[in-house]
Amino acid sequence: MRLEAQPFHTKQIPMQFELSKAFLEEITKAIATERNGHIRQQISDLHPADIAEILENLSLTEAHHVYRLLESESGADVLAELDEDKREKLLSSLTSREIAEEVIEKMDSDDAADVLSELPAVKQAEVMSLLNDEEQAELKDLLAYHENSAGGLMCKELIRVQLNWTVATCIREMRRQSKQVDQVYTIYVVNEANELQGRLSLKKLLFASSGTRTLVQDLYEEKVRYAHVDQSSEEVANMFEKYDLVVLPVVDGSMQLLGRITIDDVVDVIKEEADKDYQMASGISEKVESSDTVWVLSRARLPWLLIGMIGGMLGAKVIAGYEAELIEQATLAFFIPLIMAMGGNVGVQSSAIVVQGLANNSIGFDSLWRRLLKELLVSLLNGSILVGLIFGFISLFFDADYALGFTVSTSLMIIIIFAAVFGTFIPLALHRYKIDPALATGPFITTLNDVLSLAVYFIIGSLVFGMG
Amino acid sequence: MRLEAQPFHTKQIPMQFELSKAFLEEITKAIATERNGHIRQQISDLHPADIAEILENLSLTEAHHVYRLLESESGADVLAELDEDKREKLLSSLTSREIAEEVIEKMDSDDAADVLSELPAVKQAEVMSLLNDEEQAELKDLLAYHENSAGGLMCKELIRVQLNWTVATCIREMRRQSKQVDQVYTIYVVNEANELQGRLSLKKLLFASSGTRTLVQDLYEEKVRYAHVDQSSEEVANMFEKYDLVVLPVVDGSMQLLGRITIDDVVDVIKEEADKDYQMASGISEKVESSDTVWVLSRARLPWLLIGMIGGMLGAKVIAGYEAELIEQATLAFFIPLIMAMGGNVGVQSSAIVVQGLANNSIGFDSLWRRLLKELLVSLLNGSILVGLIFGFISLFFDADYALGFTVSTSLMIIIIFAAVFGTFIPLALHRYKIDPALATGPFITTLNDVLSLAVYFIIGSLVFGMG
Repeated sequence: MRLEAQPFHTKQIPMQFELSKAFLEEITKAIATERNGHIRQQISDLHPADIAEILENLSLTEAHHVYRLLESESGADVLAELDEDKREKLLSSLTSREIAEEVIEKMDSDDAADVLSELPAVKQAEVMSLLNDEEQAELKDLLAYHENSAGGLMCKELIRVQLNWTVATCIREMRRQSKQVDQVYTIYVVNEANELQGRLSLKKLLFASSGTRTLVQDLYEEKVRYAHVDQSSEEVANMFEKYDLVVLPVVDGSMQLLGRITIDDVVDVIKEEADKDYQMASGISEKVESSDTVWVLSRARLPWLLIGMIGGMLGAKVIAGYEAELIEQATLAFFIPLIMAMGGNVGVQSSAIVVQGLANNSIGFDSLWRRLLKELLVSLLNGSILVGLIFGFISLFFDADYALGFTVSTSLMIIIIFAAVFGTFIPLALHRYKIDPALATGPFITTLNDVLSLAVYFIIGSLVFGMG
Repeated sequence: MRLEAQPFHTKQIPMQFELSKAFLEEITKAIATERNGHIRQQISDLHPADIAEILENLSLTEAHHVYRLLESESGADVLAELDEDKREKLLSSLTSREIAEEVIEKMDSDDAADVLSELPAVKQAEVMSLLNDEEQAELKDLLAYHENSAGGLMCKELIRVQLNWTVATCIREMRRQSKQVDQVYTIYVVNEANELQGRLSLKKLLFASSGTRTLVQDLYEEKVRYAHVDQSSEEVANMFEKYDLVVLPVVDGSMQLLGRITIDDVVDVIKEEADKDYQMASGISEKVESSDTVWVLSRARLPWLLIGMIGGMLGAKVIAGYEAELIEQATLAFFIPLIMAMGGNVGVQSSAIVVQGLANNSIGFDSLWRRLLKELLVSLLNGSILVGLIFGFISLFFDADYALGFTVSTSLMIIIIFAAVFGTFIPLALHRYKIDPALATGPFITTLNDVLSLAVYFIIGSLVFGMG
């Protein structure tokens, strides 16, 4: 027992481990010189997430070396925290028996299912065959659910008590069950048929006098939110966000309690959703990180560039159709960049507001027509300001060429209004037909916008300069 | 007490309330005809977040009507869930006394501080003066912290026990304290000087035999992560994400336990961060929703459009400098759109990958030179493919004009490489100087890219066609 006078807090771990280059170099050196005791000492007090971060910054053989030094419990935790990419590589250097006994059996069922699903089919079957029947059945269940569903997010470990138990039985049973459960947030109450009946807070249980014959059904809370096992992870994430949940039970069609989803997995879903939309808006077609290989990075970026390229080629064809006018009136070419930039910018802005509104469920109940009308007003307002400016600019710097000023201003106004309305309409329409509205901020729509803008500009130009 | 045979789950609330247009219309009608009993009945079983959603879709007077029908406890909860915008308006229709007694006093301290900070200064002072001394002091403390710091996120309500208490005292004290705390996740252990010493899990406390003289210091866990009150909310959010936290205690420089941050507030921070980056990448300069007014929407969109416009004007000036060449060689104009689109796209892609890596803390320890080299390789790879295609396109569709093909290909390659390297360098440099790297995906950089691309294209064009 400690004395109170002791300055306890000096013994506490630092607030957060900050991986430094110096630390990494020290570990790398220790690996090269096989000073395993030193490595163990350096990482023994770290959180699995910190150790995972270290492994991600080491080469595969180095990471493997460090992984071998971990106790198997902590090794499994580290693997659960590791990047999918690195984990796959690390696992490929382990035997099926090692994976079964040192990884899968030590993990929570949701992480175990994730790891299994990443293994090649042959190895997956091998690992499965080495697990006991109960584990096999549990994991087969979990593997059957779609990755982006409540079933794909849940883990089977939870604390479950029955309505007709006394508080004393309840606590005894919980003690037994809680060995498998890292973090108990809520106790789920079921009937004898395992149908979800409600929840029991630890607080309430703690305050109940355990000596008496109080029953669970006298203490439990009937109101409980739950997810259906087939609900999409987006829906689940929205529920967590809206109701400030930390954990949510998952049931099947007949209200059987199957598992629970915890907030940490939901935070990952929220991040991934946001990242996906961001990548779409910035022209990246698959999830990449700057640490990926040159090949992966190129592949993720090429599709959008190709579409943009095709747009540029179409643009060239459009302009080529007006070669005669251009030779006559070279000034028309000066404003091609402006026309292109404006159409694209306005379109992306309009779409992005809708996409974000849909993602955040804050889109409200306005009708499509009201929405388009509003967008029209916004673009008229902004368009007028911009058109005024460009007209002034041309008057000042291009010898007050009013025909040119008129051409640029008129087409700019048309393009701004068109891009705004089009940019609002497309994501709403995509959403209606259950297609990801973020596609509207992607390459097809912006490229289409560019080409149409050019066409408008040159049609008006040829009319104004009387060469149509 | 219920009989087990009863089908309990039919009495449970539905999984999630889904606000429908029909429901809104029903409520609106009931408000118009003052059928208050009906309204109360419709919303009595709903979660505060659901009621807030309803209010957000009503007019201010309608919302005010419904708010008046809520019991004050639930009214405060609904206000806490409401959009800042709507909340401000609703509060402006309440007297200072109503705000003090029916809102602030019924709220958790973090929500109360948020609401207070949104009030006009005069009203804020009035409301403050109506609170008791303890509440005043608590709120003054919270208001002093920066909105984007751990202090700004924390609430003061938590369960705090002392090292030298017995389990029995501990439970008695907790019972008293827990009246203020909605959700107990962890019990914080302090010494007599209120210095954070560790934490005690409810589970452990529950399993400890409360009859004995067991002390808190025999049960508690010394290892506890904590945030310093001045840490930024981004750092706090990263800690929650990395370590899968649900709650985190907040201390000051001398380890005094000040409050706790819960995951629901952190989820909001994560969302806001992601939204901010997304808005930057899609050209919106402030947080807007499609339900905002035309004026707000215009204002949020105009700045980026103006910068794009200035870019377009500079582009016009650049091209005007090559008017003679254009008259001679009008085909040069055909590829202006392609040149512009490519420079912009490659730049945004490169920046976005870095911005996302920085936001997710997955940027690794590569040196700047290694990173730029990699980016160079990626752009060489993608650039070669694109340049090959454009050369083929010009050969096929533009009478195999090799001079033109050479001009477009060469400038395209230079632009792609430049944009990629520049796009990688800028966000890293901004980050280094503690400026938000997402700025790199914003209008300045993309506009600069556009103008430089045009200049490169026309310089090479004039050299090739021998008119420089």
